[in-house]
Amino acid sequence: MCGIVGIVDAGGVSFPLYYALYALQHRGQESTGISTFDRRPFVHKGRGLVAEVFDEQILGRLRGTVGIGHVRYPTTGANLPENIQPFNFVFREHTLSLAHNGNLVNTNALRTCYEQDGQIFCTTTDSEVIATIIAHEIRRSGSVEDAVGVAMQKLQGSYSVVLTLDDALYAFRDPLGIKPLCIGRTRSGYIVASESVAVDALNGTLLRDVAPGELVRVTENGITSTQLAISDRRAHCMFEFVYFARADSVIDGTLVYDARRKIGEELFLGAPMDADMVAPVPDSGTAYAIGYSQASGTPYLEGLMKNRYMGRTFIMPDQQMRENAVRIKLNPIKKHLENKSVVLIDDSVVRGTTSRRLIDIVRDAGARQVHLRVGSPPIVAPCYLGVDFPTRTELIASSRCTEEVKDLIHADSLYHVPLCKMVEAIGIDVGNLCTACLTGQYPVEVPGECCDARCVEFQKGSVQTRLDVE
Amino acid sequence: MCGIVGIVDAGGVSFPLYYALYALQHRGQESTGISTFDRRPFVHKGRGLVAEVFDEQILGRLRGTVGIGHVRYPTTGANLPENIQPFNFVFREHTLSLAHNGNLVNTNALRTCYEQDGQIFCTTTDSEVIATIIAHEIRRSGSVEDAVGVAMQKLQGSYSVVLTLDDALYAFRDPLGIKPLCIGRTRSGYIVASESVAVDALNGTLLRDVAPGELVRVTENGITSTQLAISDRRAHCMFEFVYFARADSVIDGTLVYDARRKIGEELFLGAPMDADMVAPVPDSGTAYAIGYSQASGTPYLEGLMKNRYMGRTFIMPDQQMRENAVRIKLNPIKKHLENKSVVLIDDSVVRGTTSRRLIDIVRDAGARQVHLRVGSPPIVAPCYLGVDFPTRTELIASSRCTEEVKDLIHADSLYHVPLCKMVEAIGIDVGNLCTACLTGQYPVEVPGECCDARCVEFQKGSVQTRLDVE
Amino acid sequence: MCGIVGIVDAGGVSFPLYYALYALQHRGQESTGISTFDRRPFVHKGRGLVAEVFDEQILGRLRGTVGIGHVRYPTTGANLPENIQPFNFVFREHTLSLAHNGNLVNTNALRTCYEQDGQIFCTTTDSEVIATIIAHEIRRSGSVEDAVGVAMQKLQGSYSVVLTLDDALYAFRDPLGIKPLCIGRTRSGYIVASESVAVDALNGTLLRDVAPGELVRVTENGITSTQLAISDRRAHCMFEFVYFARADSVIDGTLVYDARRKIGEELFLGAPMDADMVAPVPDSGTAYAIGYSQASGTPYLEGLMKNRYMGRTFIMPDQQMRENAVRIKLNPIKKHLENKSVVLIDDSVVRGTTSRRLIDIVRDAGARQVHLRVGSPPIVAPCYLGVDFPTRTELIASSRCTEEVKDLIHADSLYHVPLCKMVEAIGIDVGNLCTACLTGQYPVEVPGECCDARCVEFQKGSVQTRLDVE
Amino acid sequence: MCGIVGIVDAGGVSFPLYYALYALQHRGQESTGISTFDRRPFVHKGRGLVAEVFDEQILGRLRGTVGIGHVRYPTTGANLPENIQPFNFVFREHTLSLAHNGNLVNTNALRTCYEQDGQIFCTTTDSEVIATIIAHEIRRSGSVEDAVGVAMQKLQGSYSVVLTLDDALYAFRDPLGIKPLCIGRTRSGYIVASESVAVDALNGTLLRDVAPGELVRVTENGITSTQLAISDRRAHCMFEFVYFARADSVIDGTLVYDARRKIGEELFLGAPMDADMVAPVPDSGTAYAIGYSQASGTPYLEGLMKNRYMGRTFIMPDQQMRENAVRIKLNPIKKHLENKSVVLIDDSVVRGTTSRRLIDIVRDAGARQVHLRVGSPPIVAPCYLGVDFPTRTELIASSRCTEEVKDLIHADSLYHVPLCKMVEAIGIDVGNLCTACLTGQYPVEVPGECCDARCVEFQKGSVQTRLDVE
Repeated sequence: MCGIVGIVDAGGVSFPLYYALYALQHRGQESTGISTFDRRPFVHKGRGLVAEVFDEQILGRLRGTVGIGHVRYPTTGANLPENIQPFNFVFREHTLSLAHNGNLVNTNALRTCYEQDGQIFCTTTDSEVIATIIAHEIRRSGSVEDAVGVAMQKLQGSYSVVLTLDDALYAFRDPLGIKPLCIGRTRSGYIVASESVAVDALNGTLLRDVAPGELVRVTENGITSTQLAISDRRAHCMFEFVYFARADSVIDGTLVYDARRKIGEELFLGAPMDADMVAPVPDSGTAYAIGYSQASGTPYLEGLMKNRYMGRTFIMPDQQMRENAVRIKLNPIKKHLENKSVVLIDDSVVRGTTSRRLIDIVRDAGARQVHLRVGSPPIVAPCYLGVDFPTRTELIASSRCTEEVKDLIHADSLYHVPLCKMVEAIGIDVGNLCTACLTGQYPVEVPGECCDARCVEFQKGSVQTRLDVE
Repeated sequence: MCGIVGIVDAGGVSFPLYYALYALQHRGQESTGISTFDRRPFVHKGRGLVAEVFDEQILGRLRGTVGIGHVRYPTTGANLPENIQPFNFVFREHTLSLAHNGNLVNTNALRTCYEQDGQIFCTTTDSEVIATIIAHEIRRSGSVEDAVGVAMQKLQGSYSVVLTLDDALYAFRDPLGIKPLCIGRTRSGYIVASESVAVDALNGTLLRDVAPGELVRVTENGITSTQLAISDRRAHCMFEFVYFARADSVIDGTLVYDARRKIGEELFLGAPMDADMVAPVPDSGTAYAIGYSQASGTPYLEGLMKNRYMGRTFIMPDQQMRENAVRIKLNPIKKHLENKSVVLIDDSVVRGTTSRRLIDIVRDAGARQVHLRVGSPPIVAPCYLGVDFPTRTELIASSRCTEEVKDLIHADSLYHVPLCKMVEAIGIDVGNLCTACLTGQYPVEVPGECCDARCVEFQKGSVQTRLDVE
Repeated sequence: MCGIVGIVDAGGVSFPLYYALYALQHRGQESTGISTFDRRPFVHKGRGLVAEVFDEQILGRLRGTVGIGHVRYPTTGANLPENIQPFNFVFREHTLSLAHNGNLVNTNALRTCYEQDGQIFCTTTDSEVIATIIAHEIRRSGSVEDAVGVAMQKLQGSYSVVLTLDDALYAFRDPLGIKPLCIGRTRSGYIVASESVAVDALNGTLLRDVAPGELVRVTENGITSTQLAISDRRAHCMFEFVYFARADSVIDGTLVYDARRKIGEELFLGAPMDADMVAPVPDSGTAYAIGYSQASGTPYLEGLMKNRYMGRTFIMPDQQMRENAVRIKLNPIKKHLENKSVVLIDDSVVRGTTSRRLIDIVRDAGARQVHLRVGSPPIVAPCYLGVDFPTRTELIASSRCTEEVKDLIHADSLYHVPLCKMVEAIGIDVGNLCTACLTGQYPVEVPGECCDARCVEFQKGSVQTRLDVE
Repeated sequence: MCGIVGIVDAGGVSFPLYYALYALQHRGQESTGISTFDRRPFVHKGRGLVAEVFDEQILGRLRGTVGIGHVRYPTTGANLPENIQPFNFVFREHTLSLAHNGNLVNTNALRTCYEQDGQIFCTTTDSEVIATIIAHEIRRSGSVEDAVGVAMQKLQGSYSVVLTLDDALYAFRDPLGIKPLCIGRTRSGYIVASESVAVDALNGTLLRDVAPGELVRVTENGITSTQLAISDRRAHCMFEFVYFARADSVIDGTLVYDARRKIGEELFLGAPMDADMVAPVPDSGTAYAIGYSQASGTPYLEGLMKNRYMGRTFIMPDQQMRENAVRIKLNPIKKHLENKSVVLIDDSVVRGTTSRRLIDIVRDAGARQVHLRVGSPPIVAPCYLGVDFPTRTELIASSRCTEEVKDLIHADSLYHVPLCKMVEAIGIDVGNLCTACLTGQYPVEVPGECCDARCVEFQKGSVQTRLDVE
């Protein structure tokens, strides 16, 4: 769960990268970095938000017409400065900068393999393993295309990657297309980014998604594409659509907002009821609730107001305050809720603790009934491919039926969108989605888990195609 | 446009003040401060957000069971550290801490008067003038009640004030009740704050508003009230309801969200039309748009998505980027807007430049028609009482009819809620609202402006009443 | 114990003030500030060293050709931002900025007096009292000369002050000249500063000291002097010469280094002995030790090396580390000390604890004998005039004879310079020095202390003289 | 030019490392870091001084009874966070932390060699090359002793290294012993550090230097030594003695202060003259000047006072101020210098620009004659082994005789200590010193330079010896 961006622009890339990272900030708030190249690398990285890490002076020093950027989600063991991306590697007078979104499942095996050959690593990240393979292969063949082709054969898991090799920008996406990556055109260049909102931030035009298994080379003159691997099926992460991506992003052809709104409709159609109001858990529940309201005619009304200023540093010194923190973040509007039968809509239920607290708050505020509707089916299995879910035992639905969960979270009724309806709303064939967290069937082999593996064919003599743009 | 809070709590006040200021953060993001008292004053203030200025260690040092806090809106000449509130004044071994929301219109006359008597001032603020009068009178009479009574006779303008004189907490509001101020009860104490959301943040109960012209003394045992001035009419700022306050606040008996929703209904009823969708300018337009949708049946759909991470430090080095900044803050959802007839709802039109940019963006995104609906009547006159409007000539509606404004902002149609309907929605008699920015009739005398002055009678032998709480 | 500076310079004053404050940094490391004037005041202040509080951008914003600056010594109750000097006061459209070095002894009486008249104070500092009197009197008479004249009659204690009234720079010194203040000429203006090293920092020429009781007005065209008070005797602080001032400063006609060197000679002549080496306690003991070495022929050799990087934030979590901190700050050179008879020279003995630790360290490093020689007579009484001595009971010499002190600090012998010899070395008649901490006889009246008061005559019709410079 | 330290202490190492780094701060002020190990690595690093980068909370988090630290001198290309030492590398579930002082001359060849095998590098530092070799060899043989042995065969240049492999602390020094490294015993553990002052800071006992070519393993129980390489001659850097090390350090058996004092004596004996005073360029010239004074009888008197607060951030916006900066840093004491014949003593002359400015300042202050005496012979050749000298053409003495240099720097006379006398003062045989910057004869092969290579024999079956401590 990170955001990546690569830009080529004759007018300089540091400010465009900054704006694009701003648009991707929701994908990671822990740290951020930008790496540009103008005969030598220019790098600045730091902990905190994009607005905190960069200022005008710093951006002014990041010279060059090509560069990449990264925002990072907080994960454990992440407080080492060397773990902040983009990573820079040096070999044979070349500089390889790389930013990665995703998660490998065979990191340890690959590390061991390279450590056998004497490689030592500067970080514990899977991203460094990706860079190592690519650098090894570039050294051998001299070709980035061949190198990424070999990497795709070795890497198992999710990886959307932007990289610069000196002044050349490349981007590629794993053969299953698990994590999003799209291409846009700006007034004076091109952009590759995790979500289309980054293209919008530069007032650019979304051209298309990077295809699963595709490598693109981006220059000021256009985009050259090489299809390095072809899978019989895709495995787009469904969680991008229900929670992680911004609602105004278009991912793999689907407007996220649309998918959520349609799911909202299904939440009514699948469990019709006569309530006084439908209220979202802001902000992620909003589009669902609008869809629900339109399908049902139940009035859409905000029941919980979000405090826009809650940040990472909110202080909660004791247990009572921690309990109270949800209330400071989401304030119930008593007058809206009093004596009402409320349909409350959230995108997902993970541990269930937040749901329980919110339902309690809504009820304390006077609601007569609280019916929780959820934009995703029950999450029953962990994610190994980039979403920071807890372990299986901590997932409330992994060992409980919906009725049990309903009681635990104090809801009057609980209804999840059925998998088939969610898939329909997303508009992508179920065979092309990763629904592992909902089904326990993983699209890649994970030790100890069931695998519904996609068959991938790697292109030996891959045909390069030149993208004709407008 | 600031936020103030005062708390009495046997369990210590620094953390409750912190949470309350968090809830009031929308009223001011430039600087913040807390002052507590435990035999001597403890003060911490700084520039930035509440989350940036305070940490657990600092809060731990702010000892005492009584204290006040302030968040400040950025205004000119504000970058001196001594201008950050609460202010602390020392006289005769007493410490007077004071935080003020509002704006006086006779500051200069009062300053001159006291300067004649030799007083020198440490700041250029009107808040210091308030403190000076109170301190002078306390010295003379020894009574805070008498002192605030004299102050109310001298001060002209808007002032909601919390103050501590050593370990006693007081709060008062000008005789016209221009700026809001309310009282709440918490588990172990009391809170006085600009908006009820601060009471909610402590999981407290809103008791009532401080009455115009009332002084309350707050102790752990309850609240003592003294009515120091009585006006025949009030002058509650209507802009609190249409823009400034949080939608989930209850001000002078009215839930802000309710007022906005009802205005939204009027925006349809007054100018009915058949559009494809109604979209708010987030976040302030949301409640209006929901009301519009419910009255009209026009589908509510977000057309502009707000970037939640735009902060004070967003960098815009050149004109092109400044133009683009609105787009980064509010991203149009093309698929929602394409080929649609869109009703766009905003709370107000001030200079008109933002409206024009937003309408352009919506139209660029494919909207066939853009009809702007505005939650307040045209703003034609400056505010001298605390809202940071520009000068009269910069107000787009001050010298133009709605038709002209419509053309200037590129709208297909433009409709403002009529004053009478807005008043009806707020639910307060028009005679008790300040509508000076809409009518040019000011509730207090302002040199060069028309005055619709309220008649205030000051209570000489004011009767103290003890508030029975629960 | 603070440092002050005022500069007039046609080429701008912010950078010169910065350099001058750098040169005065030894007089105060807690906080610093600069105030300039160019039609309106420009102020920047903060906690920390000059290098930490200012940067090029900030200095660029401090416009104007006149300004003042301050460095502040850490004292109790000082952590309020409003206590950082220079102070700015506003009255009748004038801005009074003021920076003060010294300490009043009748602050409370003066405060009470002005509080009777209704004045309230923003700080608890004596500096604000000075500003209040001056502002009151300027209001009354319109003349800064008259106002400072009245102030000198009311103020008791030490005060060297620089102030700007709008764009006019003034400086004055109490009638006894307790704290230093000198005037210098630079290439394009004038400077008034606590010590001549600030003049040196601008490559300027030291013109003379501000005379006790003198007020100077400094403009780009020269200096106008008004003698407002004349005392029959002066009371220059002797501690400036023995410890506080930089050795390379010239104060009231005496090079500090010279005074210390001559005292060092006396330390041998008064207690001649045959030692192997003489070593200073760096840095303040250096000049004394050089003098001792020259008079005695005893080799000068450093026995303790000072760590140049010890700052305010050195961490000492437990008692053992606190004991060890002296050792990290001052490292003994074993090879120099082993088996030697060492004369160790320090400027003064206050509590005696540091002396004991240093002597222990020198002895642990192998010294056979440690003979402490002290550049000032025993300190037996507290200072009320600006030196941060502890209370009388904490002064080791206040109730003990030298023999007792010698034993307590583990010295083999202890010899202080006699008062008469110190005075001779300073080169100022004893009647013109303040030696209160050595004799208990104070030059101004202090409740409960003996007074050897100087007789001051205030000049009614004081004659202004224009200073002819070069 | 960096400082390194490694500590084993049963009571925890973070605070001892902090104090030791404080004592080594003079060896590098740009950045600093600490790495400890307690089942997993704990690391904190940052730009700035030790006092700025660490606080009590941070040190509290650095758990473990073994750890290393580093202070870094500012060099070009150093502003990347990943370049701050200690470096951490991960391979096969081991964590290798490493801190390095010195400079390799065959970095590029070694990098290329490993890049051939596919290794990619995260930094451009030679330190990472050292770690790579060691990690490779540990992987192969499993033995740190063997790995460091191989490394010593491959590495050419200077390297004093401390490293931890998980919870084991090792230290080694290149076979020529170019950079210093010593071992000390503390109350509850052991310390290895660049200079003995770090041992002193912990109140420890200096045991001995790490021998050239020696690897020591340090545990709580003692020190195990393995001699991995033996050279027929050593090449201790003479510049440590004349400039870089603290005067109170003992390096390879010589007290630095002693060496400088003796050189000072030689500066008189070799060019006897009758001057009025001898003054050091503080602080490095002090010990020389004391020696000169003792040998000559010329009075030692400070002519230039150093401002103790000049830091890295001193602002000099224009050329005039840059010229003036030396004056702010070193203030001439006019009264000492006026009309005097002055012997000014500095440790070295590099570019000559600082010497010229200082001589001008001394002369401007009134000195009749200024005779420069220099504690090192003329520097004629660049250093490739760790001292940050400029290029050969920038070295003023590289192409000029002393007479020419004398004129260029405006001295009345100029005398350098002869090489043989300097060597005598240091007390180490000339064959065991590196004097390359004085002679152009390098102790290791450097392309394009003359080599006076030492013959090193690598120990195959190296005998481990257990160090008997006390």
